[in-house]
Amino acid sequence: MTRTAVTSRELPHPERDEIRLEGVLHALSDPLRLQIVRELAADGGELSCSYFDLPVTKSTTTHHFRVLRESGVIRQVYRGTAKLSGLRRDDLDDLFPGLLDVLLAAADRQRARLAGRG
Amino acid sequence: MTRTAVTSRELPHPERDEIRLEGVLHALSDPLRLQIVRELAADGGELSCSYFDLPVTKSTTTHHFRVLRESGVIRQVYRGTAKLSGLRRDDLDDLFPGLLDVLLAAADRQRARLAGRG
Repeated sequence: MTRTAVTSRELPHPERDEIRLEGVLHALSDPLRLQIVRELAADGGELSCSYFDLPVTKSTTTHHFRVLRESGVIRQVYRGTAKLSGLRRDDLDDLFPGLLDVLLAAADRQRARLAGRG
Repeated sequence: MTRTAVTSRELPHPERDEIRLEGVLHALSDPLRLQIVRELAADGGELSCSYFDLPVTKSTTTHHFRVLRESGVIRQVYRGTAKLSGLRRDDLDDLFPGLLDVLLAAADRQRARLAGRG
């Protein structure tokens, strides 16, 4: 069985039982990080940072992804030269049942509400 | 009909439609603020700040309550000499259905999980 090479550059991630609700909420309390999570959830797979069209510098983007990774919300792996990110849905659903779905629904609802004002 | 006097000292609160998901998540991303919200939810009514036995100074306690108030999570009113706090459950349930209950359940679950390690 062949797999795309995962290089030896490993990024630090919390184990499942090291993930804390407070850290997850902090990670999602930023509008750009919430947007990243919404897009990852909509895709359902792994996306490169460059996929995201965020109105901030590259270093700020990297910072936001690091906060998401270190809080346990996303997993990042290098595949070849690309750094790919995916939601840790299984871990989050196991630790905090229903939380991710309710949060994503709340974000959708707020987006619709604010757009409706336009 | 008599009511306990609410003094003219009014505290600033966001209107319901000014409450933002990101602000609510930020407010709940601190362990002490999350504890305050859990206790308010368990009580269901209004509690004085002095009810809470938090391991921080009075000014830090006041800060945490202000963050909760300014994000729209709690409402604070003066009644006589007491400043009472209550969850804005109706507003939060209306804006973000299910969010508060899922968050409280997640906090309970985490507490049980971490206590189980002891």
